[in-house]
Amino acid sequence: MADLGFARLDLDRAVRTGDPEVVFGAGKTPEQISAALARLCQAHPTRAVLATRVGEEARARCRETLPGADIDDVGRTVTLGPLPAPRGRVAVVCAGTSDLPVARECATTVAVFGAEPDLVVDVGVAGLHRLLAERDRIAAADAVIAIAGMEAALPTVLGGLCGAPLIALPTSVGYGWHLDGLTAFLTMVNSCAPGVVTVNIDNGFGAGVAAARVARQSVRS
Amino acid sequence: MADLGFARLDLDRAVRTGDPEVVFGAGKTPEQISAALARLCQAHPTRAVLATRVGEEARARCRETLPGADIDDVGRTVTLGPLPAPRGRVAVVCAGTSDLPVARECATTVAVFGAEPDLVVDVGVAGLHRLLAERDRIAAADAVIAIAGMEAALPTVLGGLCGAPLIALPTSVGYGWHLDGLTAFLTMVNSCAPGVVTVNIDNGFGAGVAAARVARQSVRS
Amino acid sequence: MADLGFARLDLDRAVRTGDPEVVFGAGKTPEQISAALARLCQAHPTRAVLATRVGEEARARCRETLPGADIDDVGRTVTLGPLPAPRGRVAVVCAGTSDLPVARECATTVAVFGAEPDLVVDVGVAGLHRLLAERDRIAAADAVIAIAGMEAALPTVLGGLCGAPLIALPTSVGYGWHLDGLTAFLTMVNSCAPGVVTVNIDNGFGAGVAAARVARQSVRS
Amino acid sequence: MADLGFARLDLDRAVRTGDPEVVFGAGKTPEQISAALARLCQAHPTRAVLATRVGEEARARCRETLPGADIDDVGRTVTLGPLPAPRGRVAVVCAGTSDLPVARECATTVAVFGAEPDLVVDVGVAGLHRLLAERDRIAAADAVIAIAGMEAALPTVLGGLCGAPLIALPTSVGYGWHLDGLTAFLTMVNSCAPGVVTVNIDNGFGAGVAAARVARQSVRS
Amino acid sequence: MADLGFARLDLDRAVRTGDPEVVFGAGKTPEQISAALARLCQAHPTRAVLATRVGEEARARCRETLPGADIDDVGRTVTLGPLPAPRGRVAVVCAGTSDLPVARECATTVAVFGAEPDLVVDVGVAGLHRLLAERDRIAAADAVIAIAGMEAALPTVLGGLCGAPLIALPTSVGYGWHLDGLTAFLTMVNSCAPGVVTVNIDNGFGAGVAAARVARQSVRS
Amino acid sequence: MADLGFARLDLDRAVRTGDPEVVFGAGKTPEQISAALARLCQAHPTRAVLATRVGEEARARCRETLPGADIDDVGRTVTLGPLPAPRGRVAVVCAGTSDLPVARECATTVAVFGAEPDLVVDVGVAGLHRLLAERDRIAAADAVIAIAGMEAALPTVLGGLCGAPLIALPTSVGYGWHLDGLTAFLTMVNSCAPGVVTVNIDNGFGAGVAAARVARQSVRS
Amino acid sequence: MADLGFARLDLDRAVRTGDPEVVFGAGKTPEQISAALARLCQAHPTRAVLATRVGEEARARCRETLPGADIDDVGRTVTLGPLPAPRGRVAVVCAGTSDLPVARECATTVAVFGAEPDLVVDVGVAGLHRLLAERDRIAAADAVIAIAGMEAALPTVLGGLCGAPLIALPTSVGYGWHLDGLTAFLTMVNSCAPGVVTVNIDNGFGAGVAAARVARQSVRS
Amino acid sequence: MADLGFARLDLDRAVRTGDPEVVFGAGKTPEQISAALARLCQAHPTRAVLATRVGEEARARCRETLPGADIDDVGRTVTLGPLPAPRGRVAVVCAGTSDLPVARECATTVAVFGAEPDLVVDVGVAGLHRLLAERDRIAAADAVIAIAGMEAALPTVLGGLCGAPLIALPTSVGYGWHLDGLTAFLTMVNSCAPGVVTVNIDNGFGAGVAAARVARQSVRS
Repeated sequence: MADLGFARLDLDRAVRTGDPEVVFGAGKTPEQISAALARLCQAHPTRAVLATRVGEEARARCRETLPGADIDDVGRTVTLGPLPAPRGRVAVVCAGTSDLPVARECATTVAVFGAEPDLVVDVGVAGLHRLLAERDRIAAADAVIAIAGMEAALPTVLGGLCGAPLIALPTSVGYGWHLDGLTAFLTMVNSCAPGVVTVNIDNGFGAGVAAARVARQSVRS
Repeated sequence: MADLGFARLDLDRAVRTGDPEVVFGAGKTPEQISAALARLCQAHPTRAVLATRVGEEARARCRETLPGADIDDVGRTVTLGPLPAPRGRVAVVCAGTSDLPVARECATTVAVFGAEPDLVVDVGVAGLHRLLAERDRIAAADAVIAIAGMEAALPTVLGGLCGAPLIALPTSVGYGWHLDGLTAFLTMVNSCAPGVVTVNIDNGFGAGVAAARVARQSVRS
Repeated sequence: MADLGFARLDLDRAVRTGDPEVVFGAGKTPEQISAALARLCQAHPTRAVLATRVGEEARARCRETLPGADIDDVGRTVTLGPLPAPRGRVAVVCAGTSDLPVARECATTVAVFGAEPDLVVDVGVAGLHRLLAERDRIAAADAVIAIAGMEAALPTVLGGLCGAPLIALPTSVGYGWHLDGLTAFLTMVNSCAPGVVTVNIDNGFGAGVAAARVARQSVRS
Repeated sequence: MADLGFARLDLDRAVRTGDPEVVFGAGKTPEQISAALARLCQAHPTRAVLATRVGEEARARCRETLPGADIDDVGRTVTLGPLPAPRGRVAVVCAGTSDLPVARECATTVAVFGAEPDLVVDVGVAGLHRLLAERDRIAAADAVIAIAGMEAALPTVLGGLCGAPLIALPTSVGYGWHLDGLTAFLTMVNSCAPGVVTVNIDNGFGAGVAAARVARQSVRS
Repeated sequence: MADLGFARLDLDRAVRTGDPEVVFGAGKTPEQISAALARLCQAHPTRAVLATRVGEEARARCRETLPGADIDDVGRTVTLGPLPAPRGRVAVVCAGTSDLPVARECATTVAVFGAEPDLVVDVGVAGLHRLLAERDRIAAADAVIAIAGMEAALPTVLGGLCGAPLIALPTSVGYGWHLDGLTAFLTMVNSCAPGVVTVNIDNGFGAGVAAARVARQSVRS
Repeated sequence: MADLGFARLDLDRAVRTGDPEVVFGAGKTPEQISAALARLCQAHPTRAVLATRVGEEARARCRETLPGADIDDVGRTVTLGPLPAPRGRVAVVCAGTSDLPVARECATTVAVFGAEPDLVVDVGVAGLHRLLAERDRIAAADAVIAIAGMEAALPTVLGGLCGAPLIALPTSVGYGWHLDGLTAFLTMVNSCAPGVVTVNIDNGFGAGVAAARVARQSVRS
Repeated sequence: MADLGFARLDLDRAVRTGDPEVVFGAGKTPEQISAALARLCQAHPTRAVLATRVGEEARARCRETLPGADIDDVGRTVTLGPLPAPRGRVAVVCAGTSDLPVARECATTVAVFGAEPDLVVDVGVAGLHRLLAERDRIAAADAVIAIAGMEAALPTVLGGLCGAPLIALPTSVGYGWHLDGLTAFLTMVNSCAPGVVTVNIDNGFGAGVAAARVARQSVRS
Repeated sequence: MADLGFARLDLDRAVRTGDPEVVFGAGKTPEQISAALARLCQAHPTRAVLATRVGEEARARCRETLPGADIDDVGRTVTLGPLPAPRGRVAVVCAGTSDLPVARECATTVAVFGAEPDLVVDVGVAGLHRLLAERDRIAAADAVIAIAGMEAALPTVLGGLCGAPLIALPTSVGYGWHLDGLTAFLTMVNSCAPGVVTVNIDNGFGAGVAAARVARQSVRS
């Protein structure tokens, strides 16, 4: 372990679980985030480290202090170091453009955790023709992440169209009495399509980790 | 009004709103239900009266005491007297066979309230091909009732496929943490398809009344 | 479809469902809203396009860049292009002056979707004489939208006074433990008046679409 | 105090608060209820004692063992001993016949606690003419109890029609997603009519106590 | 009625219900509040009018434009015109100093609605000796308002100590998982003291109206 | 460990934590409960073992097959073997007689876990004189358990009267909208008396274990 | 498809998704369940079909009418026809013996859907030594299902011990205020271990399908 | 008592309950907090007084006006006067660094209330080795406070490892649908480890008071 004063960094996680190091940016100062990334990268120069939920000010600091960092202003992530060679492909499917920040966090996580993300945007079920046009591409993936807010019908429709492991990811996108995404969450947990599993609202990181673990151990594609 | 001892029957409703008389059977004894139907029919021999939520024992009594009554054991309704000539057609679309009791109560209500019900069963969105096969039939109706439990994605998919007035009817069919139909209800209220309206859980009667009112004043078909 | 960079606009919706194009303004920048309206109007110069939930800054931009636009600062809508000739009339009835923003969004939607809105304001049930004075005007409409917050008794009272299709629209107006409009929503969903249907809280757009679809296919009035 | 083995009876309450003794029957055996009434009556032969929530079996036992008891099978109450001379009048107003058990418990409580109950039944707001016909009778009472289930609009309408102290009493009568009376409760707590106060769901006893206390100290009528 | 452009003022309420005119300040501009008070006072120069929920800026404007107005910065009320001669006394009892804003709004409402408020502060049940010291003063009032947040035990303890009509008024004062006052509300609605009635959270106005109506028709004291 | 076929009994718990063995009876058959008790007693003949939530049929079987067992039909517990010599005293204080089953389970647990229970019944806060009469006895205990349902004001009042460690135990006793004891639970968690800790609803066993652990390590009394 | 009168059986699912046919037994009669199994088996004699949530009476009928059926009285499943050769191994890990019915349904589903289930029972986190003893066996599986009720800490502890895809399965086992398993559900959805995914409460079937799909496409073990 | 104008300070609490005086800083101005501390310290110069929930501005003022005050910027507490000699030791155990503010408030409270706090940080259950390394130190304390947010598994694991009185303290640390700490709260209340008691979310003060009371009367260590 390495002690930065404000946190003890676990430098040996990859040995134990095969996963990379991650800095959860929410509630940390810009200085803490960039320092943690720098220290982790120094310890493991040959593989990527990831920071999620990185605010605007912290991304600016990373731009200054971490040359070579890959910074996504939509998904609010910062990646440092070379991505692993991808094993398996994960389809990251997203109902509306408002879900894009969650989808981008999710896709980046997939890449850092060792699989290839394939982002399919704006295929909500209220316009079925758009979804059906992408059916084969989605069904051929090693794992599928279905992202939706509002009434969140997407995972159920997808579950009837393909047999790959399917992770439903609810977002807090909605209006009126949608309970900050709980409606989407409930819809997904009650899907009549068998085998759908769910993560917490807006948890693009969690869905990405789960899907990457599935994809990188697959021989399906 | 007519006083039966246990209730004051409103014999003049049709004059005021154009709607038939209805006996809500829940919480009433078999004797009370059959007596109320008989008295209403006597007052208005030329048009149908309806009883809903009629339990097994009460349906048996109606079979004995009300010759000519039309009794639906699945939808738990009893109809007495001639149905009105239908104006307009209502598509009553239903996701699963478990939703059938609610769908039948709904269809009978549509008929008694003066429109033609058209029951389309077992077209859940987890098997899209079945729904797409019925698309034109549904889209041509004067009003559509979309019935679903569990994750209740049906109204959203239907809302993207047709432009007729669409009433979503959630049912309490589900397993685990589905909150007795609240999940379906929430999904419908948050549908991303514009113009979807909703009634209470399992309220086949309410949806039927609303749809019949729309259909019988329509010139669409 | 037309690709604006930040969204794919669906230019063919009217062909499929008979409905106009709409820009949902929440979460979009002023530039995005005005550009979307301009592009939609260019594609369909002969009919109106609508933007809802347009904030103060975006309305200012539309005033500058879209000469001829009809801008409602209370209902927060922007309309561009000629309104369709109205078919049928929709009574938009509203319990209190606090409900006016929702009522105005609703009335504008009715007009853009092809029916005539008739706004009846400040007829809450705590002062019954005001409501009874407007009874005949409301009952003669092809569809009625009953808007209320707080305890939301209006749709039930209206439902007993007239037989037209009735859409209840709850608002988030209230004080103390009113759950951001859930109280009004629950009241409406549990109305003892038969045939009342409901939309989500503050969803003036949704209620307007539903009512316009009913009214424009009616031969009632 | 008197010790019956299973309970310590408070024989001196009337001295402290001016209220009679009450046996809450729920969860007590028929023997316990009849014994408690007998013992209380023996201690205070000149005034009435009341038992509420008395089940069918316990009412049968009271009929056998307590000659002279006044037993209400609808309101599930047993009264023993002479009622006090009433001071003031309480209008007990009730929306539907399903609310009658609660209304009867309420009216009996009013009488035992020293005021005159005046029961007005079946005046729900979906049929306004029935309520308006009883307006003057209700407005002239010293206190008003407005009882309703479902959407519970009655207290708000009554609150706009009369200025007497008004207690709203929600009942668990309803269908679908009505949350065992919580809908009615919420409606009443959020009433836009000023000065409405509320008791717990189905708490006819509590509303009756409150109203009787108000009425018996009034000089209004 | 008088039309101010932004509202129709009801100038005849006192005739119908015996209550004064009130301006609910929440959601109104400083100009609207002061104009409404001025207009009402002009119509009824001989009796008080009240504005509640008046924000800091609006109170400043009232200080400038309404000489003679009585302005309470704690209770956020503005009163204009002579108070009515009080009939009856209302004990306004309050558990903690944090409840003072609600208690002051309540006391002012009592006075404007025609009874004498008697404010008893800081007598929470965690220090019983303070409450017991005020027992006789409270028990002798014509009506009692028990105000409390957090666990809200005060009304139950008071209900065992005195027999006057008792209105429980929950406040949103609390920490951690107190649900913005719902905890206090639930405690009060479930009080084991008979006859306790409740108003909405922080609704000092509503409790004051109810108590004043009771007190001014009483002959108790 | 000992394998009974249907469960692996942990025979060494006392060594690790100093606590006795316990059989949680809910969901087990009468045969399973009596066999588990017999087996545990055989392994540890010198100290008591406890079964909680033992239904009527299972208690009957224990009466037959376990001579010498101490069976409490109110608290639904079965104790087998000699109680430990008590260290410290726990006041088990209970608001109403309806709370007695929970209080008895709690007191028996205290005894089996090595402290002396002192049961104080029927001292609800709506009759303060009864509680104040027992004040010194309660305050002198090494730990206090305050048991209450409904509005659950008891722990707050007790917390202001004594300084011993105080555990609040909510019960599901209540009527109307009390949410199966959640009201009592919320009241206790939000108590304004400092240092009050809480266990789950009706969890007499848990409160007893916690209090006994405190009392048996105390030198207070 | 095959029409049995009461249901349309989908005989071609395996072709589309690679999954076997399943009969969901809840809400079906014993006759319907055994008939559906017989018909499906006749159509696909070379592979297994599964019925879940099969009640006692229906299992008895299957024993009579379906010789060769594999019937699990704990997991309430019926399997007919030869299991597929397993690809991959799924560790089905379960906190307490009360969770066994869900765990057994889950394990049988895994087997029918083509992977090898490995059931590890009674390793709750309150006795860590038992869980640590099974650590290597669990970590080596291709997928892990962590089953727990009550406070449901198991998935989080497991997530820190192994890196395989991990599905959390909450059960409704609990006491007091556990909300029928919602507590366990919430715990799992909020796990601080990355990559944990969740299914609905008691949904052993859903977790089994998801895990089998992952395991059978894996090259991990 | 001492009257400061804005509050009545209770100067005699220590005599009655043995506890020190505390100023709850939330909702008080910087001037009020520093004045209250100064006045309490003047009355009891020989023992410590504590202020909790002290905001940044108020801590600055205390730094200026109260020389000798001990100010904790993380735990947001201010302590004035000499700490009492500690009796007994309290292990304050904390799952993550985000829980530190609550843990520090808790530890300071323990010290001011007369016991020795022993802070053990960053021992979450997702990394069991860190927790097991501190096991003996924790188990030897007179009382244990287990602090955790998110899924809050820590108290259950600790409860299986040691037999000391254990207080669970949930924090509002979490992401997505964690309900502001309710998830952690529910987990703790439903812990399968016997004898765990709980305080409100983020209530470090309450847990500290309870633990100090237990520890200072203990002879365990």
